[in-house]
Amino acid sequence: MKLATLTTPQGTSAARLDGDHYRLIDGFADVGALLADPGWETVAAAADGPAIPAADASVTTLVPHPGAIVCVGLNYRSHILEMGRDLPGHPTLFAKFERTLTAPYADIEAVPEDPELDWEGELVIVIGTGGRRIAESDAAAHIAGYTLANDISMRGWQMRTKEWLQGKAWEASTPVGPVLATADEIDTAVARLATTVNDETVQDHAIADLVFDPAHLVSYISTMMTLQPGDLILTGTPGGVGRARNPQVYLKAGDEVRVAVPGIGELRNRIVAG
Amino acid sequence: MKLATLTTPQGTSAARLDGDHYRLIDGFADVGALLADPGWETVAAAADGPAIPAADASVTTLVPHPGAIVCVGLNYRSHILEMGRDLPGHPTLFAKFERTLTAPYADIEAVPEDPELDWEGELVIVIGTGGRRIAESDAAAHIAGYTLANDISMRGWQMRTKEWLQGKAWEASTPVGPVLATADEIDTAVARLATTVNDETVQDHAIADLVFDPAHLVSYISTMMTLQPGDLILTGTPGGVGRARNPQVYLKAGDEVRVAVPGIGELRNRIVAG
Repeated sequence: MKLATLTTPQGTSAARLDGDHYRLIDGFADVGALLADPGWETVAAAADGPAIPAADASVTTLVPHPGAIVCVGLNYRSHILEMGRDLPGHPTLFAKFERTLTAPYADIEAVPEDPELDWEGELVIVIGTGGRRIAESDAAAHIAGYTLANDISMRGWQMRTKEWLQGKAWEASTPVGPVLATADEIDTAVARLATTVNDETVQDHAIADLVFDPAHLVSYISTMMTLQPGDLILTGTPGGVGRARNPQVYLKAGDEVRVAVPGIGELRNRIVAG
Repeated sequence: MKLATLTTPQGTSAARLDGDHYRLIDGFADVGALLADPGWETVAAAADGPAIPAADASVTTLVPHPGAIVCVGLNYRSHILEMGRDLPGHPTLFAKFERTLTAPYADIEAVPEDPELDWEGELVIVIGTGGRRIAESDAAAHIAGYTLANDISMRGWQMRTKEWLQGKAWEASTPVGPVLATADEIDTAVARLATTVNDETVQDHAIADLVFDPAHLVSYISTMMTLQPGDLILTGTPGGVGRARNPQVYLKAGDEVRVAVPGIGELRNRIVAG
């Protein structure tokens, strides 16, 4: 099953993607609100609200009001090595704010304060059932499914201090979506994550190269806090970011960046002058 | 003016502290909801809801649902030096989640996963009027007032990776309150922040020793995102944390830790076994 949040004339609505059209899930303003219903899977599967052709749908931020956005840094062997670091013993975690997120096809602003605008295509875990101190063996039952993010990073600000937040939390800089794909829709053992800039492939990597896999991340993060439905866990980016190139390459106004995983779809964002 | 959020039989309510009693501010569930009203200062000053003796009031988390909690590390000259670091050119920023916060007199759990539970008394900026790219000279108009936090840190987890978040975001570990004191209630040029553990003073420091003062922080953070009413900025802790002692000292079940600034009051939290 694939779920999305659509902008409608009445505001926003959760919706189920059925091939070439969406079916609105009445009574739920977005996928986050839907996941807060313990029966969300049944509700979503049974929904028969108005149908909207996919070509006409306005898809917006999948979970516009997540209670927590936890991001993992340095989680693909290839990216860790290109950044010149050792393989870690624990996940490296940082956060984003709700206002950091934006829609899957939104324009993203090249801010005047930092010209080092870089891409980071990422697989995102969406929590369905909350819990604290979840065992790794139980984690799958807590994961509603997966989506995508582009953890657009302002490298200049990111590297100003040891803590990365200020390069990772610029307003409306992280597109999330387009759909939540339930676990049966993708095969994480073989799926590849691909990022393109102006149609040039810059990242193309097997998700299976994650140092800390989704079950481990859910268990680890739930040690410190209760995970809640709609929480997002950005699992980190593989090798191929612009900063690691020689010479370094950054995004500029007019560029189009895409992040894709088969079974989930793609993010597609144009960089615009700030 | 001093404002608080009280737990009432009906839920929670914003309230004004008038000497020995609180006056409920009807129609506002907490101080965050109050600050979202552009006329909050007039509304709060005029409120004449039911009176509750301060001794009988149940004061809870000042802003229970902030849109963003931005924390500053390494912001007192004395604390930077005790941690063995150089004075920074930019503020070091990290985040907390809403669920990290707790009430000003709440018990705090000593978690089994990390015995290195440390204190960090901090002055907190509470945003009143939102804005983006706020000039330092305009910042005062965006600050509703100040409160206190104890940025309780799980040092073992904090030091596992370069990013501090996982030592800073344990559930219900950061008390915030007891009141929002408007700027006229405290003199940041002379006020001292004091932390005590079981009545021993462990931090006692002039707020004026901040490397980056409130106006600078508001301006800096608003460069990357629109600040919104009720946002909290934890300004960092002065020297005297348990980890910097020789030998190191950590909090354990049964300890009571207090953080006080004259004009704001004090946080008072007991550590309990997890």
